[in-house]
Amino acid sequence: MQALVFDGELRLADVPTPRPEKDEALVRVLSAGVCNTDLEILKGYMGFKGIPGHEFVGIVEECANEHLRGKRVVGEINCVCHRCEYCQLEMPHHCLNRSVLGIQNRNGAFAEYLTLPEENLHLAPPSVRDDVAVFTEPVAAAFRITEQLTITASDRVIVLGDGKLGQLAAQVMWLYTKQVTCVGHHAWKLELLKNLNIGTALSTDPVESGVDIVVEATGSYEGLRRALELVRPEGTVILKTTVAQPTALELSMPVINEVRIVGSRCGPFRPALEALALGNVEVRPMITETYPLKDGVFALHRAGEDVMKVVIHV
Amino acid sequence: MQALVFDGELRLADVPTPRPEKDEALVRVLSAGVCNTDLEILKGYMGFKGIPGHEFVGIVEECANEHLRGKRVVGEINCVCHRCEYCQLEMPHHCLNRSVLGIQNRNGAFAEYLTLPEENLHLAPPSVRDDVAVFTEPVAAAFRITEQLTITASDRVIVLGDGKLGQLAAQVMWLYTKQVTCVGHHAWKLELLKNLNIGTALSTDPVESGVDIVVEATGSYEGLRRALELVRPEGTVILKTTVAQPTALELSMPVINEVRIVGSRCGPFRPALEALALGNVEVRPMITETYPLKDGVFALHRAGEDVMKVVIHV
Repeated sequence: MQALVFDGELRLADVPTPRPEKDEALVRVLSAGVCNTDLEILKGYMGFKGIPGHEFVGIVEECANEHLRGKRVVGEINCVCHRCEYCQLEMPHHCLNRSVLGIQNRNGAFAEYLTLPEENLHLAPPSVRDDVAVFTEPVAAAFRITEQLTITASDRVIVLGDGKLGQLAAQVMWLYTKQVTCVGHHAWKLELLKNLNIGTALSTDPVESGVDIVVEATGSYEGLRRALELVRPEGTVILKTTVAQPTALELSMPVINEVRIVGSRCGPFRPALEALALGNVEVRPMITETYPLKDGVFALHRAGEDVMKVVIHV
Repeated sequence: MQALVFDGELRLADVPTPRPEKDEALVRVLSAGVCNTDLEILKGYMGFKGIPGHEFVGIVEECANEHLRGKRVVGEINCVCHRCEYCQLEMPHHCLNRSVLGIQNRNGAFAEYLTLPEENLHLAPPSVRDDVAVFTEPVAAAFRITEQLTITASDRVIVLGDGKLGQLAAQVMWLYTKQVTCVGHHAWKLELLKNLNIGTALSTDPVESGVDIVVEATGSYEGLRRALELVRPEGTVILKTTVAQPTALELSMPVINEVRIVGSRCGPFRPALEALALGNVEVRPMITETYPLKDGVFALHRAGEDVMKVVIHV
């Protein structure tokens, strides 16, 4: 099959079609989304070598469960052992023996086929188009915040970052409180949220500080410092940015203000699929470019430029 | 009256006895404890000028409330406005207009007299000796952790730092779970906890990581990095250290592990007094030196050396 392979540099290659192991399904990829984590991987993040890509929709070609065979699915990316301490504590995302699709010890979705454990797959509702379904994983990551924190209509929220994850976080927060402001560098990106009646501000604009919740999704090591300036005493900062670069932080302020800083990663697929099916989260305007897999190297190059979502059709 | 005054350097001085304002009490100080925050103040922390000291026990000499007059009291250090947003949200410790005894805009306890709002005062139980009562404020700071976090007998806790606050935190954590290990640099300080059957380890010893809760009380900007290595996924780091020096942190690990980092400051006096009265927290072995107020400059100098609690008798 054809696939994008990263081994220090990214190239299109002919590689063997993967064989599903026990309890795994073989999935023919229809579409895959490019995430900033993919771009970080091309810079060496996680030391990953292989086929990147972890946001996808596809058709199950082979699997033991006949109810899944031939069905259109999306898939959770953490493949877990069910035996380690964290699996037994019902924190499978933190499985000590996990592989992660296209990120850690498992080939990913920028390919004609991928394999995943059957238990990772979710049927894509028919009303959710392919190019919408590829957003399930990042929308789930936004819903993770709502599992970690009770958000009510009286909460004031600032989302730092107008990129893909920032916009999805702002949309998901907006389902819980209308007092959401997304702060970013790009007027044209913020325009997408304005069209949904979600509050926005340019980074150079003054914004009211002392908010209850700040979601840090800037993708920059500077983001947390700004978040700590904006959050109220005993408020919460949700940390979404994963960058390898160390951040210099003055920690006495969060101690004096008794701020909570909460790391946040992968989230629940079910509310994400529901939000996409109902149109509660609007993702199609975020797709700026689509490419066939054969142009995948260029697609990932473009994803690092001034665009929003790049989708690869396989 | 005599007092220690800091205005860039610390000196013993004759200053006017303070006059209590409306709703305030005049307190004759009996004993005061030296805290690391006092030492930070002498280095310029908070930009404080005036009389430092915020851990005390004293006798109420003047006040409107006759039930307090002549009584032995300890006092909460945050003096609040009751009108601002955070007071109204029942977070008076974060009052926007607060003064803080011996730390911010209010003269402190290294003096013959101090003033505090009556509402800040708590009667010291007769069974609590003066040199024990001065620990009420830091013991309350340790109990603050139990307000921010549910701690159960199955939780494994590491306390980083064998100084005064680390030891009090370890003792308070031990009331909730016996799986407590205090990690520090000083064998002789850890010995105090060993005598209470609380687990200890030297910083150079191997300690099992993946614990549920890490209390960071090292007083060093390096402490948080170590705490993040020791805490389990979805575990909690309680940040007690306030140092002005910025810390370089690699933030992708706490995001991937979805760690909670919670700043923690002042706490509730009632459980602290109860623990001291019942002997559930044992503080007298922590007192290494006591000095009269006239030797206060030397006392604060000594407090910065290889000692535990220094107490000033007035």
